[in-house]
Amino acid sequence: MTRHITSDDVPALAAGAAIFGTGGGGAVTTSQFGVAAALDLHGPVRLRRVGELTPDDAVIVMAGIGAPTVGIEMLPSAEQPETLLREMERASGRRITAVMATEIGGTNGVGPVGWAAQLGLDVLDADGMGRAFPEATMVAMNVAGVPRNLTVLSDVVGNVTVMRTIDATWLERHVRAFSVAGGSLCLGASMLDAADVPGAVIEGTVSRAIEVGHAMLGAQDPVAALSRTLDASVLVNGKIVDVSRRTEGGFVRGSVTIAGTGAERDRLLRVELQNENLVVLEDGEVLVSVPDLVTLVDSETGHAISTELLRFGQRVSVLAWACDPLWRTERGLEIAGPPAFGYDIPYVPFEPGRTAPGAAGREGATTTSGATA
Amino acid sequence: MTRHITSDDVPALAAGAAIFGTGGGGAVTTSQFGVAAALDLHGPVRLRRVGELTPDDAVIVMAGIGAPTVGIEMLPSAEQPETLLREMERASGRRITAVMATEIGGTNGVGPVGWAAQLGLDVLDADGMGRAFPEATMVAMNVAGVPRNLTVLSDVVGNVTVMRTIDATWLERHVRAFSVAGGSLCLGASMLDAADVPGAVIEGTVSRAIEVGHAMLGAQDPVAALSRTLDASVLVNGKIVDVSRRTEGGFVRGSVTIAGTGAERDRLLRVELQNENLVVLEDGEVLVSVPDLVTLVDSETGHAISTELLRFGQRVSVLAWACDPLWRTERGLEIAGPPAFGYDIPYVPFEPGRTAPGAAGREGATTTSGATA
Repeated sequence: MTRHITSDDVPALAAGAAIFGTGGGGAVTTSQFGVAAALDLHGPVRLRRVGELTPDDAVIVMAGIGAPTVGIEMLPSAEQPETLLREMERASGRRITAVMATEIGGTNGVGPVGWAAQLGLDVLDADGMGRAFPEATMVAMNVAGVPRNLTVLSDVVGNVTVMRTIDATWLERHVRAFSVAGGSLCLGASMLDAADVPGAVIEGTVSRAIEVGHAMLGAQDPVAALSRTLDASVLVNGKIVDVSRRTEGGFVRGSVTIAGTGAERDRLLRVELQNENLVVLEDGEVLVSVPDLVTLVDSETGHAISTELLRFGQRVSVLAWACDPLWRTERGLEIAGPPAFGYDIPYVPFEPGRTAPGAAGREGATTTSGATA
Repeated sequence: MTRHITSDDVPALAAGAAIFGTGGGGAVTTSQFGVAAALDLHGPVRLRRVGELTPDDAVIVMAGIGAPTVGIEMLPSAEQPETLLREMERASGRRITAVMATEIGGTNGVGPVGWAAQLGLDVLDADGMGRAFPEATMVAMNVAGVPRNLTVLSDVVGNVTVMRTIDATWLERHVRAFSVAGGSLCLGASMLDAADVPGAVIEGTVSRAIEVGHAMLGAQDPVAALSRTLDASVLVNGKIVDVSRRTEGGFVRGSVTIAGTGAERDRLLRVELQNENLVVLEDGEVLVSVPDLVTLVDSETGHAISTELLRFGQRVSVLAWACDPLWRTERGLEIAGPPAFGYDIPYVPFEPGRTAPGAAGREGATTTSGATA
């Protein structure tokens, strides 16, 4: 059955995309309103599975690039998606048939649905990350080795540039320069030929975000619903007792400390972050790390809390779940494993439902603490 | 008679381009060697007059863009001119037949001859400034209102971008960002259709630079030869007694004070500069200002001294001559008159041979100084 996305799906898509944002990816509220309006104006958008692509299809992969804080206030121009599509078709010589989100996490998981509606294109039920990551190099297409040398960028006043870059590092560097010159936010696109799509994207993430959002928004116990739908562990229910956060080199960096409440009141978890939540520690042991997913949600509503909005006293639940298998390959971990973010720790795949190693360690530590203290 | 440029012409071209650099435009030595080598390898380049262009011709307008100091050490890649030509032909759909220098002044007046040799194209006997100016907006094409919305940029490692910008200010901003991200130097190109060339360039400046260079290099008295060939006034012969210079916002800014020697030993001139020499003052009166040309030359050799190499004790002659009439139009003065550089002074066209108003003022001041002191 062919699935369509209507404006009724947008609140669920936005809530789900925020969950997959793992603390980053930008606030979803601004784009949520724009996308709902675009769907009301242009009608529902067809959601196509990767398996439904034909050799004639070509996919434009789109994202807002820049400072998430700027994106909250500076609205995009309605012409930007059209400009990107026109220039990408001209530069590639291909007719584009579908839009894919570079990242499903955060605002960049919501916007592409509205752009597709405006452009009269389908949306591919997939994205390049299966979550949010801070850099343009951290995409499945790069893991799969699909060349992405062609990039089109458009700023809000109407300038547009078509770039051919020699590698992902230079792409990131020149894209960042254009974004900053254009007011610290631009819209960017690359292209995927239908033949290159299988194995180079994370499949099913748009419908998954909607499913997760629906489950959460309709639930009596949103955190339990999220845990069930995501196959995620609730690492702890607690309150934020410390936030150490600074803006550095264009990123939000720092850590947040969560003290357990109720039966978990002896526990203390620290979440390390760089835009996204990266590593969760308890008693010096790593419970979870990138590329596995960690999201802090409001314990009552289940809504994801992005890293820039964390503050003392918030009641939060820490959810963790397994990343797509693509990120657990050697190349995947090279690009987005702990060392890629400066952590000198080995990656241990997170298994939901498994007794958290830190929790076990904590109990052991409690048992022996009398003897060693 | 069709004129060709050979490697024998390069020393004169370089010396002449440095004179038209009016203190800026970058040191000519590095590109001088590269251009001579290119002409030896690929053979002489045909120099075409504007009047010889046919409707089928299209001109690629090229320049190095960035920090002149970086250009002294960082050599360009041999592939950059080919990349620009290929991308410009692809983006414009035109077959390019000739190269024109964006600015004849400094290294950017020399390089295009080598690029043309490498690309198998002609060189147009014209440029966009008739001198050197610091910003991409300050070109004859902009005075004439010829649209330059299409720009191609290439950095030294192999990245290339095709930009369409909404106006000259945004062009300058995005070009600067790409240049800085690419190591503070890139090669840039725009395009001129043959039909747009007349009235939108300064004609004859390549052969003029070679003529001026030849006159200077072969002369017993190089300063006198320059004055005669350029129809320039020697404002003063003297020595540098003070240099106030700082690097600010990517520009060299400051002033240099020259004390007359010999019969002129009572005179004191100040030259204000921003990369280029902008305004000459004597006893509080303006002797010359942009867009008219001011170049400080070594009093003995006649070689131009660029602003970053000015130092105490140098024996210099200050030459001044009239700019192209295009810069004296209302639109020309709006773009490159004194106020465009932050000077709140009216522009008075400089007439060579005219008694310098400052000199007259100075004599008056001397006469009355006893009474007023």
